[in-house]
Amino acid sequence: MKRGFGSDNHSGVHPNVLKAIADVNVEHAMAYGEDEYSDEVVGMFKQYFGKQANVYFAFNGTGANVLCLDAMTRSHHAVVCADTAHIHVDECGAPQRITGAKLLTVKTPDGKLTPELVKTQLHGFGFQHHSQPKVISIAQPTELGTLYTLDEIKALADLAHSYNMYLHIDGARFANAAVALGCTFRQMTTDLGVDALSFGGTKNGLMIGEAVVLLNPKLNEDFLYRRKQAMQLCSKMRFIAAQFKAYFEGELWKENAAHSNAMAKMLYNEIKDLKGVEVVYPVEVNGVFVRLKREVWTELQKKYFFYDWDEDDNVVRFMCSFDTTKDDIFSFVSTLKTLLND
Amino acid sequence: MKRGFGSDNHSGVHPNVLKAIADVNVEHAMAYGEDEYSDEVVGMFKQYFGKQANVYFAFNGTGANVLCLDAMTRSHHAVVCADTAHIHVDECGAPQRITGAKLLTVKTPDGKLTPELVKTQLHGFGFQHHSQPKVISIAQPTELGTLYTLDEIKALADLAHSYNMYLHIDGARFANAAVALGCTFRQMTTDLGVDALSFGGTKNGLMIGEAVVLLNPKLNEDFLYRRKQAMQLCSKMRFIAAQFKAYFEGELWKENAAHSNAMAKMLYNEIKDLKGVEVVYPVEVNGVFVRLKREVWTELQKKYFFYDWDEDDNVVRFMCSFDTTKDDIFSFVSTLKTLLND
Amino acid sequence: MKRGFGSDNHSGVHPNVLKAIADVNVEHAMAYGEDEYSDEVVGMFKQYFGKQANVYFAFNGTGANVLCLDAMTRSHHAVVCADTAHIHVDECGAPQRITGAKLLTVKTPDGKLTPELVKTQLHGFGFQHHSQPKVISIAQPTELGTLYTLDEIKALADLAHSYNMYLHIDGARFANAAVALGCTFRQMTTDLGVDALSFGGTKNGLMIGEAVVLLNPKLNEDFLYRRKQAMQLCSKMRFIAAQFKAYFEGELWKENAAHSNAMAKMLYNEIKDLKGVEVVYPVEVNGVFVRLKREVWTELQKKYFFYDWDEDDNVVRFMCSFDTTKDDIFSFVSTLKTLLND
Amino acid sequence: MKRGFGSDNHSGVHPNVLKAIADVNVEHAMAYGEDEYSDEVVGMFKQYFGKQANVYFAFNGTGANVLCLDAMTRSHHAVVCADTAHIHVDECGAPQRITGAKLLTVKTPDGKLTPELVKTQLHGFGFQHHSQPKVISIAQPTELGTLYTLDEIKALADLAHSYNMYLHIDGARFANAAVALGCTFRQMTTDLGVDALSFGGTKNGLMIGEAVVLLNPKLNEDFLYRRKQAMQLCSKMRFIAAQFKAYFEGELWKENAAHSNAMAKMLYNEIKDLKGVEVVYPVEVNGVFVRLKREVWTELQKKYFFYDWDEDDNVVRFMCSFDTTKDDIFSFVSTLKTLLND
Repeated sequence: MKRGFGSDNHSGVHPNVLKAIADVNVEHAMAYGEDEYSDEVVGMFKQYFGKQANVYFAFNGTGANVLCLDAMTRSHHAVVCADTAHIHVDECGAPQRITGAKLLTVKTPDGKLTPELVKTQLHGFGFQHHSQPKVISIAQPTELGTLYTLDEIKALADLAHSYNMYLHIDGARFANAAVALGCTFRQMTTDLGVDALSFGGTKNGLMIGEAVVLLNPKLNEDFLYRRKQAMQLCSKMRFIAAQFKAYFEGELWKENAAHSNAMAKMLYNEIKDLKGVEVVYPVEVNGVFVRLKREVWTELQKKYFFYDWDEDDNVVRFMCSFDTTKDDIFSFVSTLKTLLND
Repeated sequence: MKRGFGSDNHSGVHPNVLKAIADVNVEHAMAYGEDEYSDEVVGMFKQYFGKQANVYFAFNGTGANVLCLDAMTRSHHAVVCADTAHIHVDECGAPQRITGAKLLTVKTPDGKLTPELVKTQLHGFGFQHHSQPKVISIAQPTELGTLYTLDEIKALADLAHSYNMYLHIDGARFANAAVALGCTFRQMTTDLGVDALSFGGTKNGLMIGEAVVLLNPKLNEDFLYRRKQAMQLCSKMRFIAAQFKAYFEGELWKENAAHSNAMAKMLYNEIKDLKGVEVVYPVEVNGVFVRLKREVWTELQKKYFFYDWDEDDNVVRFMCSFDTTKDDIFSFVSTLKTLLND
Repeated sequence: MKRGFGSDNHSGVHPNVLKAIADVNVEHAMAYGEDEYSDEVVGMFKQYFGKQANVYFAFNGTGANVLCLDAMTRSHHAVVCADTAHIHVDECGAPQRITGAKLLTVKTPDGKLTPELVKTQLHGFGFQHHSQPKVISIAQPTELGTLYTLDEIKALADLAHSYNMYLHIDGARFANAAVALGCTFRQMTTDLGVDALSFGGTKNGLMIGEAVVLLNPKLNEDFLYRRKQAMQLCSKMRFIAAQFKAYFEGELWKENAAHSNAMAKMLYNEIKDLKGVEVVYPVEVNGVFVRLKREVWTELQKKYFFYDWDEDDNVVRFMCSFDTTKDDIFSFVSTLKTLLND
Repeated sequence: MKRGFGSDNHSGVHPNVLKAIADVNVEHAMAYGEDEYSDEVVGMFKQYFGKQANVYFAFNGTGANVLCLDAMTRSHHAVVCADTAHIHVDECGAPQRITGAKLLTVKTPDGKLTPELVKTQLHGFGFQHHSQPKVISIAQPTELGTLYTLDEIKALADLAHSYNMYLHIDGARFANAAVALGCTFRQMTTDLGVDALSFGGTKNGLMIGEAVVLLNPKLNEDFLYRRKQAMQLCSKMRFIAAQFKAYFEGELWKENAAHSNAMAKMLYNEIKDLKGVEVVYPVEVNGVFVRLKREVWTELQKKYFFYDWDEDDNVVRFMCSFDTTKDDIFSFVSTLKTLLND
């Protein structure tokens, strides 16, 4: 399939990652994460996030998100999130089914929660009829390609803690956020009081590999059982660990994320002034959200795969990936221009 | 880590499988199983199991088992299984948590259910206080390394259907069973009326790859949503599909399983007549279960990794893998002999 | 405790109901609904709702609602409801925990869903990542004391069925609605295509007694097991049945509901023109929602118990009950007037 | 229906209980247990069980059991119980569905667990694949009408605590046990280290009324939310509280239980030496379990209602109730004798 702008999980695996997988394919290793490779990579995570971090590999982003929420809630709790959150709209109800907890969704202008928006859901504490708010869950970057500043994350962490709640980050594209903000993982989490992070790798060049990073040590109890019971325990774990080793070595994460961010910026620059194109959210990482006439985007979809984001509103999403090339952009923009001029 | 006899998931990945993964690592592909590679491999499954089979990839064996049971039950149902069943003793309660259904366990001499044993649990139908039996779940081969004959499976399928129940097979090592019985996958399932199969690959040379094979078309409804909600939907699915492609091409599954079975048989032959060694179950596939004096097996564990199976009863398990060599066996037996002579 | 305006479940039990309970307290009866009294009362329900109705008693309103939703969904489904719905805000997450299904909430001006509002949630059908909409759930009357016309219910039922979905009514105060609309239960349900009804009794003079009325026969399968498993099966069922017998005999339900409706109307008439009082929703059944200055309602609460409904918005709720008297109203209004004049 | 020997929930309500219900049927009361009547009765419970006890009313025995287990477990835990336990065989899987935890069942000669029997399930601690044992659950009296001595309960409590586990008692007929042992409730629970008790009333003369008694204060956190979410929160709670008030006043519980126990003993004495009658369990409370020829018990069932307990083994159960009379016994025994002589 031709490279398009459908999703950053349409791309394949970075060669370094494949090589790292092959490198650990020697002899035997203990299963279920009790192997030396996993140990080593957990250590690398700790270098990024601090020694108090507890790290667990998972199979996919939904799994990582659900495991984080499961560690922070019981079924009578509630999780406050944006109504565009992946955990609300794209996981087929997994968080609620598995944890039993309720999602309280908030409409936002740009996919970002604010303390004011969150506070609209912070009532009913102590009232036995009401699901008790326990977690604020945000995505960094958001599903709309926008970013929280460090101060904004800090404000949400402080708000959460002032209500005896937790702050969770869905970091499916966390590397893209770190690159865009020019900060370290630690500066975006540990240092701000974030309690748990779903740390994504698959969308930035890994094959199958996500991680749960528990920054708050209180969340660690029983986690091993919870992961196994939630069917997220890999037997040949070294092959997930190896992917993250490649990801961290030589800062492949940074290289890949910087590239996909740059491609999105380039695409944005090429189209932002075109007549008939309206970019609807700030382009802060690797996605560009655009309003186009229906006849334009439906024609464009015949040549390039991408998703309509809000069909009723004629908003579509163009995602760049670690393997998107300048030629991909030029060719795509050229096609778009032709359609717009018709 | 030195090659031992711990588990067939301690071994790595067969080179053909790694190569197949690399081969599909080109350009973009649709995510979530909507790619051409996945389509092709589903077609290969259908050649093995028949056109009516519906096939879904999953991440791990627990996931495949739970998805099968979830397709066959609602929470007021019960699943009859052996008290040694993986779904009962090794999945940290995942089947019950995710499906809500009850497991009704039966003690067996050799890990195998019989119609007579199952019938002890088949009562209370129509009684609102009683979880309604809906599934018979067996493992082929069993967790004790024993095998059902085709007639025995048929008898359980018939029993299940006569009670409006389903028959599920946990086939974590299904290839080993097919090789040992000298039959096709289809002869062991479709032709006998089996309703659903967890088809394992990871323990026979794959990296991360299991499949749910729904032989009864009634079970297919809503399965896509159920898999996603149970966090078993892989985004870059082509990399699971590719593994199964390698598995089926040139019948790698058969080659690997035949080898591990042969190694177990060889090990059995080498030790069965040793004084102080009691083989406790028939060696029909790739595992050998042995009763040894405690001081012998604890010493042996210092040199080779393997699991004690029933510590109280001094029974240990030696598992052979697709990469076990004759030298591994000779060296291991030699060490064992030395310890026995002490 | 003095009679106030807190809730229609603050009142006691109608004497006829107590008498009916005593009347069946003779000899033995089969437990769990298999007694002749329960049979008789189920027959009375069928006279109201039609022969195809299946009727099951439950302990409380939350139980009845959850059982209805459980009969209509599996965990990958979604239920569309108003964001003021009792199932969303007042059941501590029970519907989601027990069914696993997701609630999709819609903001409304008056607690009432419309086809247009519901349609905002009807997308993603067939998309495996999205909880599949399966139920529209409304309350009649709503939690805000407003009513759907028969045509409005019909429109929602038709919408639901056109999407292969179900329509559920939370009828915690269903008798009040029937009296207000001057229609029969059947005209408000069966005749419009409603699929399932939570039929409340406790808030209209019963002690402990709710019923699930399944109008769509497809929902009946396995219901007995589902009720038992959800802990809503009463052993001495005759004592719930007896309450409904009293409720139906001589149309006690109508008498009680007509009275509480009339009391609310009287209260409304007494206060609607007072300066400083703003009635915020149409008074269609037995509740009056009023915006008052905070210092007024907090003073008033010292003399009469009632709930603030939206503290931030200074809206409070006055509920009338089957035992509210004209003197209660006069005395309450007099107190209010005094406070307003201050 | 004629008084038979089917179950102690086939009987009606003791007149004192009905009277107490009528007595509280005055004016208004706060709902959901925040009323003065509930407060008073919780105080009575504390007099029986000690001040540290936390008491919550529930609707039925299944509800009380599930709430107790829910307070003691998360879904990766396991509950050890007899294979005859009500929570295993008579609650349609409610404990597992609601808590997600696994039941580990043990075969017993007489319905009673012993430390030795429990220990067969106490392994796999710390092993992530294994549901972690967290609760020992016993019934006092057992479902087979047998009793634990205080020492036996103590031994199980000590065993539980030595493994960081809890001891739960299903006390559906707890009063019958207290009377039979001649001890107080406290001596059977608090003083032995029992952590949680399902305290039954319905089977001993109440209408609808059970209570959760949490003796271990650690279990109290979040209980209010858990009860509501599990649909066991009664709105007009005073009518449950009133029943327990009558139950405790004048020690009605003792009078009723002593009577039903005595009737069972009388029945036992009348039939134990009859040829063709084999009493299969010690008659320690109000049930008599008897092996009879099939043609005898099926004939007897045509005249008196009672349950076959183990149809395959020809064991039937005769339950006495608080309203069983000596004439009931004489007449029943006379019928049985006639059948036996045939």
